[in-house]
Amino acid sequence: MNKIEPRTLPGFMELLPKDQIMFNKMKEKIQKSYEKFGFLPIDTPIIEMSEVLLAKAGGETEKQIYEFQKGDNNLALRFDLTVPLAKYVAQYYNELSFPFRRYQIGKVYRGERPQKGRFREFYQCDIDIIGDGELSIINDAEIPKIIYNTIKELGFDNFTICINNRKILNGLFKELEQEENSIEIMRIIDKLEKIGKEKVIQELAKVNVPEDAINKIIEFIQIQGSTDEKLQKLEQLNIQNDIFKTGVEELKEVIKYIRIFGLPEENFRVDLTIARGLDYYTGTVYETFLNEYRSLGSVCSGGRYENLAEYYTDRKLPGVGVSIGLTRLFYKLNELQAIKEEQKSISKVLVVSMVEDMTKPIEVATFLRENNIPTEVYIGNKKIKAKFKYADRLQIPFVIVIGEDEITNNVVTLKNMETGEQETLKIEDLKAKL
Amino acid sequence: MNKIEPRTLPGFMELLPKDQIMFNKMKEKIQKSYEKFGFLPIDTPIIEMSEVLLAKAGGETEKQIYEFQKGDNNLALRFDLTVPLAKYVAQYYNELSFPFRRYQIGKVYRGERPQKGRFREFYQCDIDIIGDGELSIINDAEIPKIIYNTIKELGFDNFTICINNRKILNGLFKELEQEENSIEIMRIIDKLEKIGKEKVIQELAKVNVPEDAINKIIEFIQIQGSTDEKLQKLEQLNIQNDIFKTGVEELKEVIKYIRIFGLPEENFRVDLTIARGLDYYTGTVYETFLNEYRSLGSVCSGGRYENLAEYYTDRKLPGVGVSIGLTRLFYKLNELQAIKEEQKSISKVLVVSMVEDMTKPIEVATFLRENNIPTEVYIGNKKIKAKFKYADRLQIPFVIVIGEDEITNNVVTLKNMETGEQETLKIEDLKAKL
Repeated sequence: MNKIEPRTLPGFMELLPKDQIMFNKMKEKIQKSYEKFGFLPIDTPIIEMSEVLLAKAGGETEKQIYEFQKGDNNLALRFDLTVPLAKYVAQYYNELSFPFRRYQIGKVYRGERPQKGRFREFYQCDIDIIGDGELSIINDAEIPKIIYNTIKELGFDNFTICINNRKILNGLFKELEQEENSIEIMRIIDKLEKIGKEKVIQELAKVNVPEDAINKIIEFIQIQGSTDEKLQKLEQLNIQNDIFKTGVEELKEVIKYIRIFGLPEENFRVDLTIARGLDYYTGTVYETFLNEYRSLGSVCSGGRYENLAEYYTDRKLPGVGVSIGLTRLFYKLNELQAIKEEQKSISKVLVVSMVEDMTKPIEVATFLRENNIPTEVYIGNKKIKAKFKYADRLQIPFVIVIGEDEITNNVVTLKNMETGEQETLKIEDLKAKL
Repeated sequence: MNKIEPRTLPGFMELLPKDQIMFNKMKEKIQKSYEKFGFLPIDTPIIEMSEVLLAKAGGETEKQIYEFQKGDNNLALRFDLTVPLAKYVAQYYNELSFPFRRYQIGKVYRGERPQKGRFREFYQCDIDIIGDGELSIINDAEIPKIIYNTIKELGFDNFTICINNRKILNGLFKELEQEENSIEIMRIIDKLEKIGKEKVIQELAKVNVPEDAINKIIEFIQIQGSTDEKLQKLEQLNIQNDIFKTGVEELKEVIKYIRIFGLPEENFRVDLTIARGLDYYTGTVYETFLNEYRSLGSVCSGGRYENLAEYYTDRKLPGVGVSIGLTRLFYKLNELQAIKEEQKSISKVLVVSMVEDMTKPIEVATFLRENNIPTEVYIGNKKIKAKFKYADRLQIPFVIVIGEDEITNNVVTLKNMETGEQETLKIEDLKAKL
């Protein structure tokens, strides 16, 4: 028979079991962290009607979308979890309770040009809090605490959650009569860290920002100091514009509550340059950096938006949320060998037999499983060496050996694969030992 | 702005959070059960190259497949988890350890005609054990124990795992010189329970099975008695055909080891009529029925196959496995209100404040979360009644109320939402109480 070459599409991550175990553990920790804060799960379809999914899309995003026909329907694969959330909240509005706190962890699809570390199928892990008509600013302060808890759970201590408010930027641009340029300006100042102050000035001039406006922008983005000093300096800029003032007030309120939520000072800071590129966010915005791995970029980002579902409903549904791009994060951390994961195997024990009769090995495995210890029995006629090699390759931490002596004396030999230590035990003593 | 009607494609299950919680719990229990037996996780892409995915497909299945073009590539969505497993094992053969025990839980896609309880996107929960060249029959006996453990974890006690061996059927057909008719005959006898003996005889006659062959088939499928009596009667049929004899030997061996694995007699039986329709299985086959909900059909099925990946590799890779169609199972059980699920909410506690200052409520929530108790703070200016209604709708079991008295006395009021009981506690005593 002619064989087909078994292969995976470029841009699609497919892991070997040992990496999959680590990936799943990270996913599980994120989920548990979201649940600890009382977020409800939803699981929307991966396929939606194009008309519904693309109600809002346009430009770059639309080009990347997987679209196809099936029967008479134009279908598309979801490219994020926000549009499905908007659809969901509009569709089931009457059956939901607000504020609606939901998490969703699932695969999304974008036909990007394949490059190293960029994926066409990837997991997003989203949380959002949606209000019905209004949503207290205190929610904007809870989000960083959830980010904090989640990143800690993933095993990192040295990270910074950067916080800003889009109204501050918008108000500044209004004051400087640069509103029409605002998206362009934000795009440029977002690059401050990457390209430096001089280049930012050059690029701003290139898009025809007048010199005095450039000076004010530079003065603004160079505000330094502690969180409280920054807030003070913002007020000292003496910008009378209402949007700007609202932004500063909101930011102050968010910082006040962030402290009440107990977020350590070393894990957050006000960063007036972050804008989250998109036109979508209207208030608080977040980015999160692992300080030892800055090259990863932000590992958890998001913000506050005025209106989640305006393409589907007239109801005003403001929200705030963040997302972790897990596939890319895992890929990068794994490459850097920076995943803090103790568990490397599923089974805790491999039971191997030195005799033909498998009765005893199976009984021991059954006993362990009944005591919630993941256990595998090596079934197959291999030499004992091959069986140990199997345990070794799968990084199973313990091997139980059962030979004639063990059967006669009704005991087992337990080997710790890491230390090499071996001991003989009664079966009922295994539980305490493992 | 013109609104787009938010809607979900027919045949795609989308749950409200309270059902999603139950669904996720079931999924988690299945996963935990598979892991207890040492199966390794894999997570293959939902999209594959058509050429790879359809190496084997044909007929009905192929018509149902979601296929489309992206750039120059012909792509398809996976329609089961077996083909991706075959691809995976062939592709990563050198990096895997055998016997390779893997589980995969994920969505698959079939464009079936939509009808109630039939889904186009649905979860499959698969386990398979793949051997390199050979695979001990003892594995065939472990599978029913895994099914048993999994169905028990889902909260059911009254179920039967039906076991057969395809070689017995194949040998019988060879003996009766009905091999060319065998798929047709198996299709018919598979319906015995549904249509009865007389109709089976009629249908067999219709496909030109001679009368004496029909008689032997009927004699065969009517073998009754205990498991051991059935095995004995099979031998007494005195069929000298080698395939038949091998089948009986294998079945006896499987039953012997099933007992060593400790599967209770009341939870399995030999059923000589099950064939799992497909041409795919070559030895042991399984079906599982919830006896109180027979209308669901088999909730966990599978069997032994000679060669997993023959379309991709010359290596012989025999395997044995089963699958649970979780989406349909959940849908049906939910409809019957037969889901044994105690957990109905994510949060265990809702903290509500009767004062404006949220400091205390947030501190209490932080304390609970640090003690791994999923907790939500109601944030928003609603009347106390609305806050309780929120807890009620989300079925959160406990509400903590914090008013001026509580703040003054440094205590909280804890209300059990089920019993209505209320008590005043110190914060540090909450942990023991919850």
